[in-house]
Amino acid sequence: MSASVETVILKIGGSVITNKDSNRFEIRRDEIGRIASEIGAARAARPMRLVLVHGAGPFGHTMVTNYGIAEGVGVPKGIEGFVRTHNSMQDLNYVLMCILRDKGLLGFPIQPSACIRQKRRELISFDTAIIAGLLDLDDGIVPILYGDMVLDESIGASVVSGDAIVAHLAPALRADRVLMGTDVEGVFEGDPKTDPAAASIPTISAENLDRVMESVRGATTVDVTGGMQKKLIEIRDKLGGIGVKIFDALAPGNVERALLGRQVGTEISLRR
Amino acid sequence: MSASVETVILKIGGSVITNKDSNRFEIRRDEIGRIASEIGAARAARPMRLVLVHGAGPFGHTMVTNYGIAEGVGVPKGIEGFVRTHNSMQDLNYVLMCILRDKGLLGFPIQPSACIRQKRRELISFDTAIIAGLLDLDDGIVPILYGDMVLDESIGASVVSGDAIVAHLAPALRADRVLMGTDVEGVFEGDPKTDPAAASIPTISAENLDRVMESVRGATTVDVTGGMQKKLIEIRDKLGGIGVKIFDALAPGNVERALLGRQVGTEISLRR
Repeated sequence: MSASVETVILKIGGSVITNKDSNRFEIRRDEIGRIASEIGAARAARPMRLVLVHGAGPFGHTMVTNYGIAEGVGVPKGIEGFVRTHNSMQDLNYVLMCILRDKGLLGFPIQPSACIRQKRRELISFDTAIIAGLLDLDDGIVPILYGDMVLDESIGASVVSGDAIVAHLAPALRADRVLMGTDVEGVFEGDPKTDPAAASIPTISAENLDRVMESVRGATTVDVTGGMQKKLIEIRDKLGGIGVKIFDALAPGNVERALLGRQVGTEISLRR
Repeated sequence: MSASVETVILKIGGSVITNKDSNRFEIRRDEIGRIASEIGAARAARPMRLVLVHGAGPFGHTMVTNYGIAEGVGVPKGIEGFVRTHNSMQDLNYVLMCILRDKGLLGFPIQPSACIRQKRRELISFDTAIIAGLLDLDDGIVPILYGDMVLDESIGASVVSGDAIVAHLAPALRADRVLMGTDVEGVFEGDPKTDPAAASIPTISAENLDRVMESVRGATTVDVTGGMQKKLIEIRDKLGGIGVKIFDALAPGNVERALLGRQVGTEISLRR
């Protein structure tokens, strides 16, 4: 491990790699292939320790909704729902692993439900030593984590989102940068999906954070549970000192640009 | 968790679920489907806490041999070999998960390389709390583990065999019985694959163990690293108090019979 090599966490939202709008179980293989190529190109240009975290899209959320297990597994077919939701996440992650392998990347999936436990839907146990060990062994290895359904001490089983994994992993690995690839261009004042006049915010600092938080209230454009406001709260509370970019990973070239540290989307830097 | 429900570990060797002889990457889907049906039938007849562990066959061994990484990853393409061997084990495990799902079983894979670390090719860290937690949550869930390639503190990465996982898991879960499905009928005096006159041994106890160990020396019929003698040594040293059956899982009906506690293969009971 060289201290001069940056550690970067790249989160790719479920809205990027699946057809989320339709709520069909449809994987966007072309987008995954393009993103894998961009990762390869960026790494060829600049060595880095890279961890990839991907979201669930319908492979997680639709399953949880269909089985009615968002509040726990103590419902009819709740246990089946838990297992099938995990299986479904494996369907998605397996395809992603295969595409990365085809592209020559050394993607090494780490199954979250094999190493994470939760309580009241909050992460309480996550041994990140194996992930750090993979990066230490060789920074060509790209550990891959994903939103998953895991054991929960209070409600049996609960969803751990890709964002929650990032929030835990970034400080544990002392990540230098977190890149959040979504299906919107960054953080907007308002909701760009319902308000075409919503203005994008190029940078968020400790100074304008409160104002931005107010302006994004209700904007649900960014994938998973809670929308953009929850994302910003998590970034503030758990990633405070780490530089974060939120950007549109569906726009070709953006993943590579983000990995290389170039301007893309919204830059969040809360270090005072 | 009911104390009256038995905990059973079923190991299915790589020689059962893959075409091991050819060393091609060929999965025996029909055999896996049949075994899944037998598991379903046995569980319908008798509730039990069941953990399934499967071997690698060529998906592990051929990969390790081809990349030359049996002694560690410090060789050309060693890191690639490590990652690709793990990826390959995921190929096998993913097919197995899908077949179990198709058969209605609640199979829940637990990725060994996400929770096991080794040193000098010996397991040094394996948190089994999640596996126990899955069984405690509902004994309809069947955790599935498998031979894998994992981080190794001394040589970078090393193979953890399905047998080594069983040896650690059985005492950790206080298993009542361990069932080892292989491609031979049990333990023989000699090697049944090279000596058609080799006699099968119906029961092995503390009394006849030494004599049996001598007679199986060199018999390599049972899958993975080390053959039948190593298997018996591991059973003696790590599973001493637990009843073990070694049987032919390719013979239809045997998996169900073994799960239901009926006579099949060789019974090993070393409890004095």
